[in-house]
Amino acid sequence: METLSENACFGGVQGVYRHASSATGCDMTFGLFMPAEARLHPVPVLWYLSGLTCTHENAMTKAHMQEHAARHGLAVVFPDTSPRGEGVADDTAYDLGQGAGFYVNATQDPWAAHFRMWDYIAEELPRVLMANFALEEDRQAITGHSMGGHGALTLAMRLPDRFASVSAFAPIANPTASDWGRKQFTAYLGADESLWAAHDSTLLMRDVGLRSQLLIDQGSKDQFLDLLRPEALAHAMAARRQPGVFRMQAGYDHSYFFVASFMADHVAFHAQALAQ
Amino acid sequence: METLSENACFGGVQGVYRHASSATGCDMTFGLFMPAEARLHPVPVLWYLSGLTCTHENAMTKAHMQEHAARHGLAVVFPDTSPRGEGVADDTAYDLGQGAGFYVNATQDPWAAHFRMWDYIAEELPRVLMANFALEEDRQAITGHSMGGHGALTLAMRLPDRFASVSAFAPIANPTASDWGRKQFTAYLGADESLWAAHDSTLLMRDVGLRSQLLIDQGSKDQFLDLLRPEALAHAMAARRQPGVFRMQAGYDHSYFFVASFMADHVAFHAQALAQ
Repeated sequence: METLSENACFGGVQGVYRHASSATGCDMTFGLFMPAEARLHPVPVLWYLSGLTCTHENAMTKAHMQEHAARHGLAVVFPDTSPRGEGVADDTAYDLGQGAGFYVNATQDPWAAHFRMWDYIAEELPRVLMANFALEEDRQAITGHSMGGHGALTLAMRLPDRFASVSAFAPIANPTASDWGRKQFTAYLGADESLWAAHDSTLLMRDVGLRSQLLIDQGSKDQFLDLLRPEALAHAMAARRQPGVFRMQAGYDHSYFFVASFMADHVAFHAQALAQ
Repeated sequence: METLSENACFGGVQGVYRHASSATGCDMTFGLFMPAEARLHPVPVLWYLSGLTCTHENAMTKAHMQEHAARHGLAVVFPDTSPRGEGVADDTAYDLGQGAGFYVNATQDPWAAHFRMWDYIAEELPRVLMANFALEEDRQAITGHSMGGHGALTLAMRLPDRFASVSAFAPIANPTASDWGRKQFTAYLGADESLWAAHDSTLLMRDVGLRSQLLIDQGSKDQFLDLLRPEALAHAMAARRQPGVFRMQAGYDHSYFFVASFMADHVAFHAQALAQ
């Protein structure tokens, strides 16, 4: 593992690291904030999964997480959103290929060779983190924005023992019924829609539900509401009387200004769940 | 004045606006955060002046100011760092020309036509802001980073009735003795060094002092310490027993991770001064 940068940040360290990934078959870069407490003992870790077009860097600079993570003594990991590099397949569209991994394991060409973001986030990166940093493997939580909210919710529902809590900012909530989903699942997973359900938060909520604590924020003026379909997930939560909080925030859009505005709440929510 | 964007942000609005500037003879863009309270009554305003290579946007996304400004009911204005555009002189170096106005009125060609950032920040933009937004003209404070810290300190010392308080993050503290200063002052102001003193915080501190409240943060691992010369300003403050606080923060560098780490302190400092 290679250290690309380390900056003092809110009493801790904001680092950026690169490692060779066997899951994706290429080098992967991630950001990691370690609070001051990590110098003394292992700390809980909060995952932040990013949205379309993002790298590890966007949330690291724009989401205002470190201040709150420092207050609560949490580490935050900022993974990239896809494999990258010259040998990695790509598409001219912003919402397919590099920057748009959708947190699935692709089975279709040309994507299957590298686009295994589910395995990377669920299996490989946790091992890399636990082996190299003072993190508590049994105290993890997860959040994300947009495509990353989709990733956070699907990971939390399918790995029910992994995360004490899950939250999402404007998640792609029902991708099997959205152009943010159908296009990508067709490309990555193929035309058999029965294979898509494991990557749709609304369907997972309907069929499986969630054991972790749950918080979702959605802006009422989000320019992508019709693609995100928050009402589908809210309906599925209501139908099973799922414990959790769904907040439609008046006036907010899809930007990082929205994410930052409610980050203090999300980090405090996770800190409380992780302390139980 | 043209609205380029407005995003809901911490209960208020983060806007970006463009206007024709007579001071600089070109269109100028600025960011403005207005807290929720501004819907009810005028609010105090905190100026944030940015550093070399920055536009209005860097601090707006990276400095984590809005959360704290919202808590204290302050507006924050994020001006650009220079005139810009095709008809505006420039240089291939990052530290001269566009993105590097140094908050002076240039008198030398080819800069004199547009590079009048002192007049823009000290006179024109305040008029534009007061005429168009619910701001309290008699409750202003100022801060900045690097070249912007230089701007904040020199403006506060030369406009002693304007700002209740001034703070700076890693300011260019003694530009007349630094390659971040001598090069630019020669280009913009000419070879007569006696004309430079009005734009050097250390010399102003020695000769004039400051009536406003003062807070300075500097990272001890800043990669530009020899260009910033914080010790010169600290010495001038000590020599006149200047009321104020100078903090050498162990381990921090010159990045926005440093700025964000201490932003809560700075905004609270200004809020307290503005309430007096």
